[in-house]
Amino acid sequence: MAAAIRLSRRNLGLTATNPSVGTLIVADEGNSPVIVGRGVTARGGRPHAETEALAEAGERARGATAYVTLEPCAHHGRTPPCASALIAAGVGRVVGASTDPDPRVSGKGYAMLRAAGVEVVEAVLADRAGDVMAGYLMRSMKKRPEVILKLAVSSDGMIGRAGQGQVPITGPVARAQVHLMRAEADTVLIGIGTAIADDPELTCRLPGLEDRSPVRIVLDSGARLPVTSKLVAQAARVPVLVAACASAPEARRQALARAGVGLLATEEFDGAVALPELLEDLAAQGMSSVMVEGGANTAKGFLAERLVDRIVLFTGPEAIGAGGIAAPFDRDTLPEGFRVLRRARFGPDECIELVRTA
Amino acid sequence: MAAAIRLSRRNLGLTATNPSVGTLIVADEGNSPVIVGRGVTARGGRPHAETEALAEAGERARGATAYVTLEPCAHHGRTPPCASALIAAGVGRVVGASTDPDPRVSGKGYAMLRAAGVEVVEAVLADRAGDVMAGYLMRSMKKRPEVILKLAVSSDGMIGRAGQGQVPITGPVARAQVHLMRAEADTVLIGIGTAIADDPELTCRLPGLEDRSPVRIVLDSGARLPVTSKLVAQAARVPVLVAACASAPEARRQALARAGVGLLATEEFDGAVALPELLEDLAAQGMSSVMVEGGANTAKGFLAERLVDRIVLFTGPEAIGAGGIAAPFDRDTLPEGFRVLRRARFGPDECIELVRTA
Ligand SMILES: NC(=O)c1ccc[n+]([C@@H]2O[C@H](COP(=O)([O-])OP(=O)(O)OC[C@H]3O[C@@H](n4cnc5c(N)ncnc54)[C@H](OP(=O)(O)O)[C@@H]3O)[C@@H](O)[C@H]2O)c1
Ligand SMILES: NC(=O)c1ccc[n+]([C@@H]2O[C@H](COP(=O)([O-])OP(=O)(O)OC[C@H]3O[C@@H](n4cnc5c(N)ncnc54)[C@H](OP(=O)(O)O)[C@@H]3O)[C@@H](O)[C@H]2O)c1
Repeated sequence: MAAAIRLSRRNLGLTATNPSVGTLIVADEGNSPVIVGRGVTARGGRPHAETEALAEAGERARGATAYVTLEPCAHHGRTPPCASALIAAGVGRVVGASTDPDPRVSGKGYAMLRAAGVEVVEAVLADRAGDVMAGYLMRSMKKRPEVILKLAVSSDGMIGRAGQGQVPITGPVARAQVHLMRAEADTVLIGIGTAIADDPELTCRLPGLEDRSPVRIVLDSGARLPVTSKLVAQAARVPVLVAACASAPEARRQALARAGVGLLATEEFDGAVALPELLEDLAAQGMSSVMVEGGANTAKGFLAERLVDRIVLFTGPEAIGAGGIAAPFDRDTLPEGFRVLRRARFGPDECIELVRTA
Repeated sequence: MAAAIRLSRRNLGLTATNPSVGTLIVADEGNSPVIVGRGVTARGGRPHAETEALAEAGERARGATAYVTLEPCAHHGRTPPCASALIAAGVGRVVGASTDPDPRVSGKGYAMLRAAGVEVVEAVLADRAGDVMAGYLMRSMKKRPEVILKLAVSSDGMIGRAGQGQVPITGPVARAQVHLMRAEADTVLIGIGTAIADDPELTCRLPGLEDRSPVRIVLDSGARLPVTSKLVAQAARVPVLVAACASAPEARRQALARAGVGLLATEEFDGAVALPELLEDLAAQGMSSVMVEGGANTAKGFLAERLVDRIVLFTGPEAIGAGGIAAPFDRDTLPEGFRVLRRARFGPDECIELVRTA
C-alpha cells in the first residue's frame, strides 16, 4: 500500500476534478509476489487508476490482489465503474486505503466487490493515503479546497524586507521543494502586495515538470496587477485569475481581461475580497487545493479566518534584521490548532510541515 | 414572481458556477405596490441577487415583500447569507419559487426566515422558475449539466446536405434565437463532422451580447480539429475544448494545445468519447448547461444514451431533397419520452421546444 500511495502522488495537481489515485495489482506467481499492473489517475482525472492497472495486468489480474488508495467507484457512466472492472478481471482481493467521501460512492464500491465474492480489506494506511488526497477529501466534504500556506522565514522571523522585492531567504534545495509543491497544487495564490513587490512567476520550473504549473490567483481588490508583470506576460501559457472587488475600476478590469487574465466574481468584506466565498467558488470550479504563497497580509487573512489546513514553513539560516517584515506568527511558538506532521532539512534550511488538528 | 423570473433570465449563462436568480422587492407605499429593489445574480455568480436588490431598496425594504426565484442561501461565508440579509433589512414577507437542491441549503433558508418571524410563501410559479434554472438544478441533483439539443430541420426532415458544409435551413430571426440560446448556455458542443464540414464559430454575435459566448466543445476522438478552423482561430477570446480519445496522435494534441485549445480528459467507449463521463466532468468544473448543436451523429449519440433534457427544433419552409442528411428523429413523430413545452414562429420558421418527461 505504501508503494501504491507513493504512486498516487505522481499525478497530484494534474487530475482535477478527480483525486490522484494509485493502484497496484500484485500476483503471487511461483510463490513470490510480483507487481503485474500499476496505474495512477491520468492527467485530467481520466481514465481512473484501476483501469490502467488492469490494462497492464491483463490475464495476470485473475486471483491477484489490488491495492487501491481510494475506494473504487461504483457509479455507472458509459464505461463500467472500477468496482465492476475489478470483478470482471477476476481480482481475488482488494486492499483499500481511503473511503470515498462522495455520497454517491461511499461504501458502495466495497459493497459491490464483497457482493461478488471479492475479499475486501479496508482502511489500510488510510491516514497516509488521505494526506495525499487531502484536497479532494476537503472539496467533497467541506465544498472548499485544501489551503496550504507556504512561508519562508529568516532566522530572525522575517519574511522579507520592506520595499526590497524578493529577498532570498532559503537556498536552492528548498526552492526546488517549493516548485514541487506548486506542481502538486491545483492553484497558487498571492496578495497584490507580493505581486507588485516581487513580480514573481509562481510557475513550476523543475526540469521535466514545466507543464505542471498551477493556476495562479492574485488577491487584488483594486485590480491593480500591472499588465507588464511576469504573471500577466505568461497568462496565455499558465492561467492567471484576479480576485478583485466589484468596485475595482472598470478600465483596469478590461485591461486585465484583454491581457488574457481571468476575473473572478467575488464578494467584498471590509474592503477586501471575502475569502470563504472565494474558496467555495474555486471548489465549485473543480479546484481541490490552493497553495498560499504570501505575503504577510494574505497569510494573516487566511489564518485569521481559520481557513489554513496545512502550513509548510521553511526557515533559512540568515537574519534579515532592520526593516524586516515579520512573519504572521512566531516561528518558535507555532500557531495554535496545528500539530507537526513532518520535519525535514533542505540544504541549510529547515522545513516544518504542520496540519490543522480540528 | 413572473417579473422576477424574467429578471433572473437576464444573466443566464453568465453566473456559473451559481444559478442565475432574480429578486424583486416590492413595497406598499401609499397603498400601491412599488418595486423598490431589483437584483439578478451578478456575472460569475456573485454577489447574489438578494444582496443587489436589498442594496437598491435600502430603508424601503422594511416591511416589504421580496420575490425570489430560488430559496435564499443560509450557509455562512464571510458575508452574511442572503436569508440573514433579508431578515436584517426588515423584509416582512418572502415569496419564493424554487427550493435549493443543494443539501447544505435546502429548506434552511426558508426555516431561518420563519424563525425570525418573516412570513414565507413557497413554490410560487416553481415550474417556471425551475425551467430557467434547469441547468443548476440538474447539476446539483444529477451531477451533470442540462443537455439542450438544438436542431434545424428542412421541411423534408433533413439537417444538411452531404459534403456541402453549412446549408441555410432557417432564416435570420431563428438564427438570432439560436445566438440567444448560446448566450444563455455555459457551453456549446458539436461533433468533429460538423466542425470540419461547416467550420462554424459557435459564438454569440448579437449586438451587445458578443461577450456572452459559451465555452465551445468539439467531440473529436482523433483530435483532428484543424488549427486553421475558425473555432481554433478565436480560442484566445472564447475558450475551445476538444474531447479526444487517449489514442489520438500526440502530435495532434500538442498542435491543438499550442494553438490555445484545451484538451479534456475522457474515457473511450467503442472508439468514441464516453458521453456520461464527459458530462460528469463538465459539471464538476462548474458547467450547468451544454447546448448540443449537432450534427446528426452527435445528436444521435446523446439521444441514444438518453442524455438529452430539452430539444429545440427549428423547422424551415424549404426542402433539401436529394443528398440530404436525415435528422436523428422524424419531425412528425417526435422522439419518445418528451412533451411539448412551447411552440413559436420565428419569421418563416417554426420552433418546437420539447422537455423530457422522465
Ligand atoms: N518569505 C515569504 O514566504 C514571502 C512570500 C511572499 C511574499 N513575501 C514578502 O511579503 C511582502 C508583501 O507582503 P504584503 O503583506 O505587503 O502583501 P500581500 O499579502 O502579498 O498582499 C496584501 C494585499 O492583498 C490584498 N488583498 C485583497 N484581499 C485580501 C484579503 N482577503 N486578505 C488579505 N489581503 C487581501 C490587499 O490589497 P488590496 O486592498 O489592494 O486588495 C492587501 O494589501 C513582500 O516584501 C514579499 O517579498 C514573502
Ligand atoms: N441543421 C442542423 O441543425 C445542423 C447542425 C449541425 C450540423 N449539421 C450538419 O450535420 C453534418 C455533420 O454531421 P455528422 O453526423 O457527419 O457529424 P457530427 O455529428 O458533427 O460529428 C460526428 C463525429 O463526432 C465524433 N464523435 C466523438 N465522440 C462521439 C460520440 N460520443 N458520439 C458521436 N460522435 C462522436 C465522431 O468522429 P470521430 O470518430 O473522429 O471522433 C463522429 O463521426 C454537416 O453536414 C452539418 O452541416 C446540421
